[in-house]
Amino acid sequence: MKNLGYYNGKFGEIEDMAVPMNDRVSFFGDGVYDATYSRNYKIFALDEHIDRFFNSAALLKIDLGMSKPEMKDILNEMVSKMDSGNLFVYWQATRGTGMRNHAFPSDGSKANFWITLTPKDIVDTYEKIKLTTMEDTRFFHCNIKTLNLIPSVMASQRAKELGCDETVFHRGDRVTECAHSNVSILKDGIFRTAPTDHLILPGIARAHLIKACKKLGIGVDEYPFTLEELFDADEIIVSSSGSLCLAANEIDGKKVGGKAGKLLKAIQDEVLDEFMKETE
Amino acid sequence: MKNLGYYNGKFGEIEDMAVPMNDRVSFFGDGVYDATYSRNYKIFALDEHIDRFFNSAALLKIDLGMSKPEMKDILNEMVSKMDSGNLFVYWQATRGTGMRNHAFPSDGSKANFWITLTPKDIVDTYEKIKLTTMEDTRFFHCNIKTLNLIPSVMASQRAKELGCDETVFHRGDRVTECAHSNVSILKDGIFRTAPTDHLILPGIARAHLIKACKKLGIGVDEYPFTLEELFDADEIIVSSSGSLCLAANEIDGKKVGGKAGKLLKAIQDEVLDEFMKETE
Repeated sequence: MKNLGYYNGKFGEIEDMAVPMNDRVSFFGDGVYDATYSRNYKIFALDEHIDRFFNSAALLKIDLGMSKPEMKDILNEMVSKMDSGNLFVYWQATRGTGMRNHAFPSDGSKANFWITLTPKDIVDTYEKIKLTTMEDTRFFHCNIKTLNLIPSVMASQRAKELGCDETVFHRGDRVTECAHSNVSILKDGIFRTAPTDHLILPGIARAHLIKACKKLGIGVDEYPFTLEELFDADEIIVSSSGSLCLAANEIDGKKVGGKAGKLLKAIQDEVLDEFMKETE
Repeated sequence: MKNLGYYNGKFGEIEDMAVPMNDRVSFFGDGVYDATYSRNYKIFALDEHIDRFFNSAALLKIDLGMSKPEMKDILNEMVSKMDSGNLFVYWQATRGTGMRNHAFPSDGSKANFWITLTPKDIVDTYEKIKLTTMEDTRFFHCNIKTLNLIPSVMASQRAKELGCDETVFHRGDRVTECAHSNVSILKDGIFRTAPTDHLILPGIARAHLIKACKKLGIGVDEYPFTLEELFDADEIIVSSSGSLCLAANEIDGKKVGGKAGKLLKAIQDEVLDEFMKETE
């Protein structure tokens, strides 16, 4: 298949798929998601993504109604049906189906499980990107990967209109993360990244970056750095499951980074190497 | 019909209706809504609700693709098909259909328009309700009636489990609003209610309450009152389109209000009277 949409056991091309009007996603965005890439039909870091997905669901008391191995089997089975093995692998669970009512469905209905698979390669790790900044007006549950994404939608559209690739959110002076990535900095040979509290998503690409830094003997400092430190950084690194480790050379039209190119490349080589080996 | 679901011109019983998987509500909760009640097939305060709905859409740059009179016509037409004229009248618009991508669809696709109609009477205005309090962890766009409602879902479920009817949100000491209502207080003969900034929804029932107070010669003070003032109030009033003007007699298990019963009843009589006259 060219692309694939899955909903509770039914699947077909995404454009042909329909879902019940009364799925709770329709009225509340009441669900959680996760996503990663596959290459050569191998889903990268699947265990970590499944773990995070189950944690997101648990924090919102969504009963997924299946085990981790069962979910992995469904994802792998759907990936195997595709024409290409290089895919954006996306899945979500919504809190059941029922007449609109804020409180959970009282019939104890299980979650609805969705998958979409679309052909896509990870982006070129070594390409430089442009960023813009914006006050972070999101809720205080950014650690949960929910379907309540309007602020990220608005920020992404604004970035696109400004000719930028991503938006760096900040709460006052404190940099939190990007609209759909984490952001970290290199300064004086140290890798600095915001701690995983309720203001950022515990990024899996971010975790792999930290692992790479430790392997390379680079100090890792989980610390809520400021906008000033961002602009003053030796390198600015944006990470997500589809971008792994991108460096920025411009923020809000100002030249930034580019002062620790060798260190940056060592980290990029390391994370890309891991991705390639795991998906060989 | 017993109940009715409408999606871009198609309609049927809600349980039988399906929507495209790729509606942007599915991945981002990317839409806005509004709701009111009809009695005797007359939709209460429809112009005000339509105005607010168009404003919510404008703030999120959602192109509704129809005029206010066209939308009113569709709503009235659908209401006319129902077995009962006493209904919860709910509608929403989502930002079009397209493959998942945070930025807006680039084909300039129009919004999808949804309606659900379900038989329901407004609740008994004179019944006392129980409240619970909770830190307001929502985003900073509570003035927009969006479909990003997970925090309200979680708060409503918690209230239900505690045997309460609604949750009063507060940001630190400041009371904002309830999970799906506004909250106001009477103190020393004055009606106090939070100002309509980005932290609360500009409730239409709240606007009617203000109008009633002014008609009755009661002072109205739009002012961000605190939790302490809430517990110390003469009366606590919870308002929404389905509840009009309910008083609370308990918050977090403590007895509250009940100190300005005559004033409260005068306001309740006034708002109920207006609702009844307009839907005669």
